Amino acid sequence: MSEEALRTLVVQVRNWGKWGPDDEIGTLNYITPDTLAEAARLVTAGRVFALGIPLDRNGPQSGTRQRFNPIHTMFRDGGDRPRTPAQVAEMQGYGGSDDWIVMPLQCVTQWDSLAHIFYEGRMWNGYDADLVTSSGAAKNSIDKTKDKIAGRGVLLDVARFKGVRALEPGYAITVADLEGTAAAQKVEVKRGDLLLIRTGHMSRYLDRNDWRHFDLDPNPFHVLAIPNMGLTLGEIFFLEELAADCAADGRYAFLLVAPPLPVARGVGTPINPYALK
Amino acid sequence: MSEEALRTLVVQVRNWGKWGPDDEIGTLNYITPDTLAEAARLVTAGRVFALGIPLDRNGPQSGTRQRFNPIHTMFRDGGDRPRTPAQVAEMQGYGGSDDWIVMPLQCVTQWDSLAHIFYEGRMWNGYDADLVTSSGAAKNSIDKTKDKIAGRGVLLDVARFKGVRALEPGYAITVADLEGTAAAQKVEVKRGDLLLIRTGHMSRYLDRNDWRHFDLDPNPFHVLAIPNMGLTLGEIFFLEELAADCAADGRYAFLLVAPPLPVARGVGTPINPYALK
Amino acid sequence: MSEEALRTLVVQVRNWGKWGPDDEIGTLNYITPDTLAEAARLVTAGRVFALGIPLDRNGPQSGTRQRFNPIHTMFRDGGDRPRTPAQVAEMQGYGGSDDWIVMPLQCVTQWDSLAHIFYEGRMWNGYDADLVTSSGAAKNSIDKTKDKIAGRGVLLDVARFKGVRALEPGYAITVADLEGTAAAQKVEVKRGDLLLIRTGHMSRYLDRNDWRHFDLDPNPFHVLAIPNMGLTLGEIFFLEELAADCAADGRYAFLLVAPPLPVARGVGTPINPYALK
Amino acid sequence: MSEEALRTLVVQVRNWGKWGPDDEIGTLNYITPDTLAEAARLVTAGRVFALGIPLDRNGPQSGTRQRFNPIHTMFRDGGDRPRTPAQVAEMQGYGGSDDWIVMPLQCVTQWDSLAHIFYEGRMWNGYDADLVTSSGAAKNSIDKTKDKIAGRGVLLDVARFKGVRALEPGYAITVADLEGTAAAQKVEVKRGDLLLIRTGHMSRYLDRNDWRHFDLDPNPFHVLAIPNMGLTLGEIFFLEELAADCAADGRYAFLLVAPPLPVARGVGTPINPYALK
Repeated sequence: MSEEALRTLVVQVRNWGKWGPDDEIGTLNYITPDTLAEAARLVTAGRVFALGIPLDRNGPQSGTRQRFNPIHTMFRDGGDRPRTPAQVAEMQGYGGSDDWIVMPLQCVTQWDSLAHIFYEGRMWNGYDADLVTSSGAAKNSIDKTKDKIAGRGVLLDVARFKGVRALEPGYAITVADLEGTAAAQKVEVKRGDLLLIRTGHMSRYLDRNDWRHFDLDPNPFHVLAIPNMGLTLGEIFFLEELAADCAADGRYAFLLVAPPLPVARGVGTPINPYALK
Repeated sequence: MSEEALRTLVVQVRNWGKWGPDDEIGTLNYITPDTLAEAARLVTAGRVFALGIPLDRNGPQSGTRQRFNPIHTMFRDGGDRPRTPAQVAEMQGYGGSDDWIVMPLQCVTQWDSLAHIFYEGRMWNGYDADLVTSSGAAKNSIDKTKDKIAGRGVLLDVARFKGVRALEPGYAITVADLEGTAAAQKVEVKRGDLLLIRTGHMSRYLDRNDWRHFDLDPNPFHVLAIPNMGLTLGEIFFLEELAADCAADGRYAFLLVAPPLPVARGVGTPINPYALK
Repeated sequence: MSEEALRTLVVQVRNWGKWGPDDEIGTLNYITPDTLAEAARLVTAGRVFALGIPLDRNGPQSGTRQRFNPIHTMFRDGGDRPRTPAQVAEMQGYGGSDDWIVMPLQCVTQWDSLAHIFYEGRMWNGYDADLVTSSGAAKNSIDKTKDKIAGRGVLLDVARFKGVRALEPGYAITVADLEGTAAAQKVEVKRGDLLLIRTGHMSRYLDRNDWRHFDLDPNPFHVLAIPNMGLTLGEIFFLEELAADCAADGRYAFLLVAPPLPVARGVGTPINPYALK
Repeated sequence: MSEEALRTLVVQVRNWGKWGPDDEIGTLNYITPDTLAEAARLVTAGRVFALGIPLDRNGPQSGTRQRFNPIHTMFRDGGDRPRTPAQVAEMQGYGGSDDWIVMPLQCVTQWDSLAHIFYEGRMWNGYDADLVTSSGAAKNSIDKTKDKIAGRGVLLDVARFKGVRALEPGYAITVADLEGTAAAQKVEVKRGDLLLIRTGHMSRYLDRNDWRHFDLDPNPFHVLAIPNMGLTLGEIFFLEELAADCAADGRYAFLLVAPPLPVARGVGTPINPYALK
């Protein structure tokens, strides 16, 4: 996309100031108590779909943008438990284990906060990119969304609509694709919905049980959505089981609950979103 | 508590084998599609209470059991964005930030998996503690619960029932306390509920805005609940706003959605539980 | 010290350009093959003094400037070794352990690189502070010194000269103190020497075996030495045993070998300097 | 190698008890004040060869045994420096940067402590492998060697002796190779020497500037040397420049100073050894 074309789109979609000059959550403002209460009524069967992928050394990161897969180790384990009768007696039989992790906050299923992408030196709502320093994001950090991300989820299974296992890498999804998918699925996308777009891309890696070469270069959509529209963006959602269920019962709307970890001044957060039907 | 008394209680509450010899999730088996669907009907007002405390350097950990507060830093920040006209042009105006974290998995609001506590060398369901090695938990790890932790939440506000801002440290809550609280609140605790007990302990630290000396020694309840009952245990929940709301509207039951991060072989997980009313 | 007075001193000591516009190691240029060969001749007894303090959870860091003590844990330990006869046979008896660490690069005995301190937005030799970004130091990084830090070490034991166990915190050491100490010790400080100044400050913490409240605010000396003089600065050296030995044999000069870890784009490095006599 | 053959060799080389039942440093006991003082006399030209490879994200680790390359980031950088006149005035012009690292202790040029390898459940000197738990090594840890690793270094350039750029991967160096190399180099290996063996293996990766596929499976030599002989073992030494220099001047002996970081209960340590001629 040319710089000119990109800028034209930027101007079209930019929402700066829409929720006041101090806003830090953008389109999450569209979720209201009413839309949430309505979404909860979609939970009739009591089924849970967990959309988070495992936090694992063999994950999708291969070093792009310095990201790596989670490194998980132990402080204490079974080898440290009381072993001799004297130790067991002293501890009254008690023992325990503890663990810790090192991870990029965007290494698995994730929310990108509105501090994640800049355009021409600006973040969402016009804040200066210099407000994100080595001590984190002074504006638009992920903890500002801590109680905001539950609402009506809608899955648009574009891959299924197009009749393919997965869209080609680099395929640009059109408005017609989205509207066609919604129509075919008999679902209406409404203000305040959390929209899940299924490309099938992840199935390539799940099929061969190998994530290598998964992570991709950023694309123009990031630039439009995050700093300009103010759209809190999710990535690497595991949608296969949910998609199969939606195809089976014809219901593509559900309650989506995807709490961010409230990382102070954080740019992203790992999540395990629940789709509840 | 004497070793003898502890063992007597252990025998009373032990659930090993109740869900078969291969079970790794214990009492979470009580949550069923029916209990979940019923819980969702409690969401009528569309209000969200986020029960997770911030992930922050000034958190509740002071070094006990080697735990420390989350350490959060940046890979990329605003200082790395394109600055010169040439850089801006080359990147089409695009820039971004990325962050990462080092943290104990039980440093903030958390689930303890059934691999966290041992009794006499055994974990939940009788698995050997040696199955938790420096590479993590081969049984009872937190990722086994990845799609299990949504259901009816019930808050028992014991501190309020006893008429105090916070129970004294070390006060042992009795069955009579719990039953009295439930009766006073006009709420019935049912099989499959996720029970939140409010002691008010956290308010001491929130009042003075200083978490020092918060973390506590383990207690007999851990030994009874985790390896013997098979109870997935939560800790350090922020209940103040939820408790105030429940006191105001008299409704102490709600939909609780608290997805664990699916850490492969993990012992614990940070969480941000949502209580939805 | 007033800003005015500081600036006057800055102008006096500033060495920018002295070793050319591209220099990144400052006064380490004074160490030459000749001074090093001469220093080696001081090693006659074959005694080694290790000046590095332990890398340990109970170290001198208490959170100032976000620094923390080293966090050391295991990937593999004795609990993971082959245990059954079958495992032992398969591995031919072999087993092993592996560990890892998380640490600030200036948490223990350390070198500060010339990228560590800025003055009026500039580093050593006039480089812009903006060259230190979240991806590290593009100029003056510690790896530039990787083969430079071996030479004649001279200990000036100012505490001993002043007849105290330790100088008072905040005491400003004068030129007369240094010259008096050297004269009393019958040692001459020469160009190319690595100068160790003993204040006795550390003994306060070693005596009570508790490092709490050790770390200190930065002082004007940092600003003069690092960005202006171009002095690679060491801190938290353990000098007690070396000082006792020097007092005993009257020899305050030795071979000092203190290799930095060549951290690419690093600002500091932990070290374990050897004084060889 | 068959298990039988390995065990025969183990019995031949085992040094357990040689330095008493409480020894934790093995063959480092051979270094004495006399051998060190003699080694220092080899420093006549004042040349330094730094044998440590960079600590860098593009290093030799590719995940074997869970090891990864160092991850280096910043707490503070130039983007955080005072920028406005008011900030500059308040800080008196002062600013600074700080960094930290996450790394396996054996990810770069390194010492393996005597706690690193087990044979039949035992470490060096017969200590039980169970003494290495998730809290580190209770015996044979690397900090026990903190002031021990300086002495006469001897380079045996086997690759050069055999007339090849690098020995074939898997080639087993024989005693005849070592003796032949020493004879050709006119150097005698003596008790207390720190022996550097050059295979040329690293040149393969340096030539193509790509470390991928560098890390190798452990080999029988580890089992013989570490737990049985009590040999503190170094790996991934950068020997190319030193070897060229030795070939040029015909002097293959030098002072080697390779201080370990004194990691409490540590199994390994990154190092930057200096060969001084």
